Amino acid sequence: MTHAEEHVEGFPAGPVTISYIAESAGVSIPTVSKVINGRSGVAADTRARVEALISQYGYRKSNPVHRSTTMELVFDELEHMWGVEIIRGVERVARAHRLGVVLTEFGPERNMIRYWIDDTLARRPACVVTVAQLSEEQRNQLRARGIPCVVFDPTMELPDDVPFVGATNWSGGRSATRHLIGLGHRRIAMISGPDDVLCCRARLDGYRAAMDSAGLPVDADLIVRTDLTQEDGRAAALALLDRPEPPTAIFTGNDLQALGVYQAARLLGRRIPADLSVVGFDDLPIAALVDPPLTTVHQPLTEMAVAATELALALGRGEERPQVGLELATSLTVRGSTAGPS
Amino acid sequence: MTHAEEHVEGFPAGPVTISYIAESAGVSIPTVSKVINGRSGVAADTRARVEALISQYGYRKSNPVHRSTTMELVFDELEHMWGVEIIRGVERVARAHRLGVVLTEFGPERNMIRYWIDDTLARRPACVVTVAQLSEEQRNQLRARGIPCVVFDPTMELPDDVPFVGATNWSGGRSATRHLIGLGHRRIAMISGPDDVLCCRARLDGYRAAMDSAGLPVDADLIVRTDLTQEDGRAAALALLDRPEPPTAIFTGNDLQALGVYQAARLLGRRIPADLSVVGFDDLPIAALVDPPLTTVHQPLTEMAVAATELALALGRGEERPQVGLELATSLTVRGSTAGPS
Repeated sequence: MTHAEEHVEGFPAGPVTISYIAESAGVSIPTVSKVINGRSGVAADTRARVEALISQYGYRKSNPVHRSTTMELVFDELEHMWGVEIIRGVERVARAHRLGVVLTEFGPERNMIRYWIDDTLARRPACVVTVAQLSEEQRNQLRARGIPCVVFDPTMELPDDVPFVGATNWSGGRSATRHLIGLGHRRIAMISGPDDVLCCRARLDGYRAAMDSAGLPVDADLIVRTDLTQEDGRAAALALLDRPEPPTAIFTGNDLQALGVYQAARLLGRRIPADLSVVGFDDLPIAALVDPPLTTVHQPLTEMAVAATELALALGRGEERPQVGLELATSLTVRGSTAGPS
Repeated sequence: MTHAEEHVEGFPAGPVTISYIAESAGVSIPTVSKVINGRSGVAADTRARVEALISQYGYRKSNPVHRSTTMELVFDELEHMWGVEIIRGVERVARAHRLGVVLTEFGPERNMIRYWIDDTLARRPACVVTVAQLSEEQRNQLRARGIPCVVFDPTMELPDDVPFVGATNWSGGRSATRHLIGLGHRRIAMISGPDDVLCCRARLDGYRAAMDSAGLPVDADLIVRTDLTQEDGRAAALALLDRPEPPTAIFTGNDLQALGVYQAARLLGRRIPADLSVVGFDDLPIAALVDPPLTTVHQPLTEMAVAATELALALGRGEERPQVGLELATSLTVRGSTAGPS
């Protein structure tokens, strides 16, 4: 009986073997083996065809001789403000499993990503946690070798079967806005990030939902979309506070924008929180250090990294999960930058 | 001719061989080989004896078959404020050499350090850059396998032959103080870290040197030693500003202490810089974001990490260096927290 005879609706009846993959791809068994083990000497198009089949059929080595001693953590660019929080969460889980964490920053050129894939396949890690944006092809390359990959806080829409860990951005936006409404604010502005960044869109929609629930009109003039930097936060705040009817409170897309609002308020002689309330988003370590300490939505970055790593390792052990995407709860941290309107 | 006949004043005449080490230690050649290759099955005291000899004689494998594809970066605890700057420097050099960076945080318990040594020896990295405090025994274990180890910004005195990269803390302390003197300040306080932390002691001595050069008395009451935290900076500043003759300027041991001074000034209704000038040390990313932006001594953490990694790799290639310790220059970054006394 050949494998072709087992072929029902595009899938084999039994477990997928290397020979089945080889036959389907029209290549030799050693060629498939090379692709699986990340070795060179296979033409790019052949490699891609084999990988697509492996990905499609879910081939797994039935008897791995190799026990991974490392895992991978990848960033496009390490951010000063939150990089360490993510790394610490991953390190915590890696320590418990005695795995070395290979940390990679692709850096400004991003051409490292090609080498990274090759080197990662050669290192045969237990799993990958990625803060970087990997392409579908790269995710397939990992999947073809049975290396689970979990996306940390995805900024873009992903296919349903891609595991991820994020935060409840919509709820966070709603809590922040409800806090301001509860203090008595009515004219509440939002300085938001770009709409095509998923978390920004969710935070903005949370703001809208809270305003709607309270029966407050959402004034389009009080919503500004700009980049997630201090400079853009300052510029947006200067424009908002210069309006004939300025807002009494501003909710920002992240903490850096909130610090820009601090600068704008100082430039215009507005006191925080007496003249203007400010709520940020992220709860970076800096939020507690600035003056006044910033009220902000806490994003549990370390716990998200712990969850992402544990999910990736569980998938690597072959555990079934009812769902492979999860969002951890945000929570409002009230500090000194919010008060009732004067 | 036996090796013992070559033995002159405790050192062999020619290159040290495995058999020479074995003979000196009174063990078999396979035992020495096991120690060198980080394999198990050697009693702890035998291992220590062999390692001490290897370390003493400088044995190196003459013909290594193994090309390292990774390097190690180790922290006791990753610090939010400067961890990323160090990691980015190491990543930059590692990318250029296409080395994977295995990042380890020992974490609060520090019992990981034992496993880390074993795992590191098994991974056979190109080099180690350590921000963590390794013991002499641990440094010897690495040296015995020919794995170069460079200490990043040592906080304690090290033997002369231990490679390290630091910053010019004394010069930095002097520049900061000269800047304040140049603005016209005479009563300049220093909130310093603990004297047994080398860099703190050097910064304090730099302050003294600048005061002496300017012919200004160093008032012992204006020097406070406390921990390098915001809380301790605030407490120290409150005490200093409460004195009958308060200082008109405060130089702090690091930026976190400076942010504590900001809080104290606000509590007491003193404006920065109109009523009080403040200079920090480190130039963390936060320094430019606070209000007013902090004048501070820039410590080139990323460049120091680059230099430490390049030094470690050069030592691994067997390059001779005239000296294995270096300090990179600090520089004063003047921002908005300093002005002439009112």
